[in-house]
Amino acid sequence: MIMLYFYYHEKRRLQIMIQLDKLQKWLQDTNTDVAYISDPVNVNYFSGYGSDPEERVLALFVFKDAAPFLFTPQLNVEEAKNSEFDSDVYGYLDHENPFKIIAERIKERTNHFEKWAIEKDNLSVFRYQAIKTAFPTASFTQDASRFIEQTRLYKTQQEIAIMEQAGADADFAFEVAFNAVQTGVSERGLVGQIEYELKKRGVMEMSFDTIVQTGANAANPHGGPTLSTVQPNELILFDLGTVKNGYMSDATRTVAYGTPSDKALDIFKVCLEANLTAMDKAKPGITAAELDAVARDIITKAGYGEYFNHRLGHGIGKSTHEFPSLMEGNDMELEPGMCFSIEPGIYIPGVAGVRIEDCGHLTENGFVPFTHTPKELKTIAVH
Amino acid sequence: MIMLYFYYHEKRRLQIMIQLDKLQKWLQDTNTDVAYISDPVNVNYFSGYGSDPEERVLALFVFKDAAPFLFTPQLNVEEAKNSEFDSDVYGYLDHENPFKIIAERIKERTNHFEKWAIEKDNLSVFRYQAIKTAFPTASFTQDASRFIEQTRLYKTQQEIAIMEQAGADADFAFEVAFNAVQTGVSERGLVGQIEYELKKRGVMEMSFDTIVQTGANAANPHGGPTLSTVQPNELILFDLGTVKNGYMSDATRTVAYGTPSDKALDIFKVCLEANLTAMDKAKPGITAAELDAVARDIITKAGYGEYFNHRLGHGIGKSTHEFPSLMEGNDMELEPGMCFSIEPGIYIPGVAGVRIEDCGHLTENGFVPFTHTPKELKTIAVH
Repeated sequence: MIMLYFYYHEKRRLQIMIQLDKLQKWLQDTNTDVAYISDPVNVNYFSGYGSDPEERVLALFVFKDAAPFLFTPQLNVEEAKNSEFDSDVYGYLDHENPFKIIAERIKERTNHFEKWAIEKDNLSVFRYQAIKTAFPTASFTQDASRFIEQTRLYKTQQEIAIMEQAGADADFAFEVAFNAVQTGVSERGLVGQIEYELKKRGVMEMSFDTIVQTGANAANPHGGPTLSTVQPNELILFDLGTVKNGYMSDATRTVAYGTPSDKALDIFKVCLEANLTAMDKAKPGITAAELDAVARDIITKAGYGEYFNHRLGHGIGKSTHEFPSLMEGNDMELEPGMCFSIEPGIYIPGVAGVRIEDCGHLTENGFVPFTHTPKELKTIAVH
Repeated sequence: MIMLYFYYHEKRRLQIMIQLDKLQKWLQDTNTDVAYISDPVNVNYFSGYGSDPEERVLALFVFKDAAPFLFTPQLNVEEAKNSEFDSDVYGYLDHENPFKIIAERIKERTNHFEKWAIEKDNLSVFRYQAIKTAFPTASFTQDASRFIEQTRLYKTQQEIAIMEQAGADADFAFEVAFNAVQTGVSERGLVGQIEYELKKRGVMEMSFDTIVQTGANAANPHGGPTLSTVQPNELILFDLGTVKNGYMSDATRTVAYGTPSDKALDIFKVCLEANLTAMDKAKPGITAAELDAVARDIITKAGYGEYFNHRLGHGIGKSTHEFPSLMEGNDMELEPGMCFSIEPGIYIPGVAGVRIEDCGHLTENGFVPFTHTPKELKTIAVH
């Protein structure tokens, strides 16, 4: 047990070192002195240390020619030192000016701090101006957001292994859900039972608010679970995701309770065909837009095109929605190591809604899903 | 029932109109043409429309001399139009440049768009540069963050009424928690039972991850609930919060399971005295720092000063942590309408941890808590 624990941590430490090296190499290649990583998810990705700093400052500083350091509120310094991060950790107290301390720490570390990369998608104007004030002659034109997006796009074997574990938790959740279905239980009651059993399993965090929609509610893209109850002869849609070591799962299944209407059964059949065909055609070299079109064409030919009113899928990893986006207009070629959802849906107002979704990773040979709950229509006997 | 529903919505609409008027008046007073509200919580505060846009753009534009408009992803436009927001809603599609559309909409609305206020605490550098590009001659020096913080600091009767309802949900959660305590149940199991019963009550969202800590675990400020189990003759700490109509509750109770050690009982007694005295001394005119000192002095005199290693309290409202911050160095005078927590704690490593917390609002006559679960030591018989 202890050996395995060390093994896991050693692998994770190595993983982070590789990611951090990539970032430092990018700084060297672009002749950038300092990267200021400000998004807590990205700080975690490059340092192994994860925390929600709320209104306080959490940052990772990476240098072209010096060792990186983490900067955290003082109360988190010990925790950060005990994380997988191998270099220095500095803190600040609530009454101190964090950017003054950051500047001092940087200046004692290196003589090169003129060219900065910042996360333009994340850094607030307030903090941008604070760091500019601390380094008045520096330039901040380099954007780290695009580089990080691109780096996170390709998952390593270790990341994929964690996402497979997250997928297994989602499969467990479906099992709980299907067993809990019975006449009169509310959508909210089902959410409660799913999350309760997950907590007993040790899964403390969902990657988004669990969606349970019965009957025609499933045709409403908005609105959380309601007090509507399960009724015989309807479809029920479950869309849920869990968090494992900072990585997300996300999957959707639609099941029948009794015998739904012919219309409901027909949209299920078409949606399943779109899902299976898209999974089959997901190979290296196809573009995101082409894969979206594979599923969309099937649904459109069946006459339901207008009822598939969202993209085919989204990337997944440390965020529930990241790159690649599988949608019209995105000519990005899909490549091995990318992780994304395939989730066609058909929603007919007042009738029923169906969505079938797996996330998975692309290999040389095709798409390998993280979730394995069967997708053929499962019929739960009315009781 | 329907009358009550309309009544609620009319009151809420009025509330939002008042808040929006305050913002417009501030623009007029500071001779600012446009405010770009970018924080989704603040968009909700001033418009009544709430949504998590993830990577997409959600914004509220308010003008010195024209009607405001909401700007949302196209897929949310209908929902936003059905919200309490009374003015125009415009959308954009994923393949469109949102800032180009925003600029067009603004220019057809008013001729005045030279002086902007932005939320410097929230707006990303990317979006700041995008809006600057769309309005190349405009100035963006005015910071809306401080004005909004100040406005949100004073809660209205309607906001307080909602927070009282959130508090009642937290009280219900404590009742569930205390009933679920028994030898061998894990911290995680207790969290699961609390949240399951809340969901059955219709409370779908917690304001933060529920904390349950048994015995010496409660002296560890970090770390979520573990698989550690309830054992006889220990203290158990519960810190939890719920969300009601976008407003938060947050409360902590520490209870005894059997007969804890004399040391544990002593820190409970001191902590309770600090809590009750601070509640009693919370009156208009005392400063945040002075109130912190009231509680801290009691704990310090009892010899536990070093074990009370956080501030006395934080503001609460649409965020779990907002202004005022009850800590050393904050000379802000507390005033009627402010809502905050009073939460002294004593944490002795390896021994036990105690925290006792209520949030409430300040009136002319003193502090009125939102939660009413008794604070005197509750002893649960071992079973």
